[in-house]
Amino acid sequence: MKLTVAEVSRLVGGQLIGPGEAMVERVASLSQAGPGDVTFARRENLKAAAAARATAVLVPERIADMAAAQIVVANPYFAFLTLLALAEKEQRAHPVGIHASAVIGADVRLGKDVALGAHAVLGDGCVLGDRTVIYPNSTLGAHCSVGSDSLIYSNVALREQVSVGSRTIIHSGCSIGGDGFGYLQIEGRHVKVPQVGTVEIGDDVEIGCNCTVDRATMDKTVIEDGVKIDNHSHIAHNCRIGANSMLIAYARMGGSTVLGRNVLLAEDVGLTNGITLGDGCIVGAGSKVTRSWPAGSVILGAPAQRMQDEKRQIVMIKKLARLYEMVRELKRGGKTED
Amino acid sequence: MKLTVAEVSRLVGGQLIGPGEAMVERVASLSQAGPGDVTFARRENLKAAAAARATAVLVPERIADMAAAQIVVANPYFAFLTLLALAEKEQRAHPVGIHASAVIGADVRLGKDVALGAHAVLGDGCVLGDRTVIYPNSTLGAHCSVGSDSLIYSNVALREQVSVGSRTIIHSGCSIGGDGFGYLQIEGRHVKVPQVGTVEIGDDVEIGCNCTVDRATMDKTVIEDGVKIDNHSHIAHNCRIGANSMLIAYARMGGSTVLGRNVLLAEDVGLTNGITLGDGCIVGAGSKVTRSWPAGSVILGAPAQRMQDEKRQIVMIKKLARLYEMVRELKRGGKTED
Amino acid sequence: MKLTVAEVSRLVGGQLIGPGEAMVERVASLSQAGPGDVTFARRENLKAAAAARATAVLVPERIADMAAAQIVVANPYFAFLTLLALAEKEQRAHPVGIHASAVIGADVRLGKDVALGAHAVLGDGCVLGDRTVIYPNSTLGAHCSVGSDSLIYSNVALREQVSVGSRTIIHSGCSIGGDGFGYLQIEGRHVKVPQVGTVEIGDDVEIGCNCTVDRATMDKTVIEDGVKIDNHSHIAHNCRIGANSMLIAYARMGGSTVLGRNVLLAEDVGLTNGITLGDGCIVGAGSKVTRSWPAGSVILGAPAQRMQDEKRQIVMIKKLARLYEMVRELKRGGKTED
Repeated sequence: MKLTVAEVSRLVGGQLIGPGEAMVERVASLSQAGPGDVTFARRENLKAAAAARATAVLVPERIADMAAAQIVVANPYFAFLTLLALAEKEQRAHPVGIHASAVIGADVRLGKDVALGAHAVLGDGCVLGDRTVIYPNSTLGAHCSVGSDSLIYSNVALREQVSVGSRTIIHSGCSIGGDGFGYLQIEGRHVKVPQVGTVEIGDDVEIGCNCTVDRATMDKTVIEDGVKIDNHSHIAHNCRIGANSMLIAYARMGGSTVLGRNVLLAEDVGLTNGITLGDGCIVGAGSKVTRSWPAGSVILGAPAQRMQDEKRQIVMIKKLARLYEMVRELKRGGKTED
Repeated sequence: MKLTVAEVSRLVGGQLIGPGEAMVERVASLSQAGPGDVTFARRENLKAAAAARATAVLVPERIADMAAAQIVVANPYFAFLTLLALAEKEQRAHPVGIHASAVIGADVRLGKDVALGAHAVLGDGCVLGDRTVIYPNSTLGAHCSVGSDSLIYSNVALREQVSVGSRTIIHSGCSIGGDGFGYLQIEGRHVKVPQVGTVEIGDDVEIGCNCTVDRATMDKTVIEDGVKIDNHSHIAHNCRIGANSMLIAYARMGGSTVLGRNVLLAEDVGLTNGITLGDGCIVGAGSKVTRSWPAGSVILGAPAQRMQDEKRQIVMIKKLARLYEMVRELKRGGKTED
Repeated sequence: MKLTVAEVSRLVGGQLIGPGEAMVERVASLSQAGPGDVTFARRENLKAAAAARATAVLVPERIADMAAAQIVVANPYFAFLTLLALAEKEQRAHPVGIHASAVIGADVRLGKDVALGAHAVLGDGCVLGDRTVIYPNSTLGAHCSVGSDSLIYSNVALREQVSVGSRTIIHSGCSIGGDGFGYLQIEGRHVKVPQVGTVEIGDDVEIGCNCTVDRATMDKTVIEDGVKIDNHSHIAHNCRIGANSMLIAYARMGGSTVLGRNVLLAEDVGLTNGITLGDGCIVGAGSKVTRSWPAGSVILGAPAQRMQDEKRQIVMIKKLARLYEMVRELKRGGKTED
């Protein structure tokens, strides 16, 4: 990035206060920014903005007495995304072209400008859309398909027949399409139930590092469009995750669980096998959900209950010492009266 | 799969009701099945079976008024396993032969019909039994051994001297034989204790995606025959897991913990370092086990206690609001009496 | 290892009791040790030491009537580390040299005696210090740097611009430098915030198998010198972990969380986004920390509170049945008085 402050201002559609010829080379956060950096300030950080050592700051309103150049925009964070996207473009070094060491199976179809990193492996019958990038040391099993403009980072394993949409990102260390965990108990031994379904991942999905998505026993495990899943999450066999749901780190979806659209699971939430959360449910961090909940429920706890009930319960537990004391007083009172 | 309904019936040893010449091409679940599919119904789903759009349904008893062909068998799910196994055989595309890009160290011994996928790596002195398959981009360190008919999926890492039995499956993303987490605290710094033991995994074991099994400090971390471990689980150094135990997702076995035979850990169960659970123990989901328990214990909670105690405790906590009210009433009662 | 007992004694600076010519070939734990093994006994295990079948035992004081040779040292475990280090040296089979199948990008600089395992991949502009070892099937993105004497085990993925110090160990299955989990909610959809910061890992750090460390949105995610992190842990974007802190398995550091120096997180501890734990804090197993705590705090629970408060609370919950009974007695007492 090598832009004058004036160019930055034009790029974000802002109003420049002060001179515009200084050069900006990096993005940085408000507290870390120094000379050569451009940053932004939310409305609650105007004081910090005034003292910023950055070369330029995107601000929501004009600030008096400020050393850095000011660029006034309605929503500084939103405007700043344009600069982040620019920085990302320069930082990223996606593989380009098909590396000589990549291994491509029979009957593979590759779209325009597909990139395969070093030692990437595509099984027989794989289909990749235009501009999709597979990073080094990743493995796609036979008959996988990936749409256009998708990114599969390094050391990802897709088993056979997994389908991934367009503009979808799968981060390093993910294992997609592993066998669901299904056994029949026969005389104290566990007899494996073959897992012959598949996994279907939609468009604009993002799956964080080291996640697992198991293939269905039969039918499909489905992650709909726009779903975002954070690191270390586990989507068991036959789950369905509705569009635009968000699962923060260590989401643990038991077998055949279903999330509606726009569900939010905060970090470290587990769902018992077979339950359903309706559209727009919100589940607080660390919850263990043991039954289905209708659309719009806001729940918390282990086992999860309505958030206000859980919060009341936490308060009551904190006050237990006082309760014990009250009961002891009452007992003493009774004795005194004797 | 291309079978007539009559052929399916013979295959599962069932009694065919209705014509047998229709073709069946896929397995599917009862609710998803359509024309060309064969499915099965448990006794509690006979109504759904009657309405099924499948071509054929395995049923436990004859159903009146059913569009699909019926195949009556004593245990439909069990009989259906035969068809699942058939479907699996057709779906799987295991690597065959030794891929040209596989790297094989010195003094490696390979059994008959071993398959090594693209970019698989075998360290010096590895020994693989007949028909064992190593998928692409997996790494076996020096002096590892794997028995016969075992499967190691893509992007698995085995460190040196790990031993794996026969008919054992290790899913993608597993890391087996990493150093145990052991340090001596010396003047505020953590001095690494070298981890020079190994890992020994038995026959008929299955380890889900992205699990970790650490090598012992000395001696061996042991997973006995028939153990099944679900995704994201962690077996620390010097653990021993008894035969046919089952660990559902995110099992967290602290260092030197011991499970007897046929133990069941439901999902998201953690065990504190050094404790032992006897044969046949059952631990409920989300529990944190902080002490040893004798054979046959059924426990739940954090810290775990006998399941009936934990359930009673949950009920008591839910009724706390009523208890507070009762105590307040008693206090008022006392005052009124003054 | 092939040493006489006398040689072992000299090596650890001990006092040999009994003959010194027997051969020792392996290290083992006290309970597992047999002929040919050397082991050690802590002060609380002197009885077991007397009965040990090992060839030699490091003991803290002379023991009467002992079959094995005794080597008396002040701190047997500490002295034993010397033997463990020796055993490790013999067991390890680090890759040596640059494997022909390793892929090295443009403008890469390699120190003396760097080793690259089979199918290892270094992106453009990577810099590796002397004697650093990259195991097979690991991937370093563009412009990564690793110091000297560091170890990156198999199937590790480093994204671009990750910096790793010297004498640092990263175990198999880790994903370092993945995008932080950041989105703007715009009309029910999640718009990705580009993550253009980096990750900086210090010297003498150890990161267990299958951990994730996300790159910062801007600036850096930082792991300072001497930090030890156990398997399956998650360091989100913009975290900072102070020197010599120790995180046991499944540590879950939310975005922008900060740990001071010498913090201890026991297993399965989660931290809510944005909070800070001061130097020397200790957090008990299974805790969910929802607010910042000053240096030296010792906390436990979900939500975490001072450890003594949490322990008192656990006791009070256990006594709830007695409390209910007392209140029922009081009610009955009141009625009787009527």
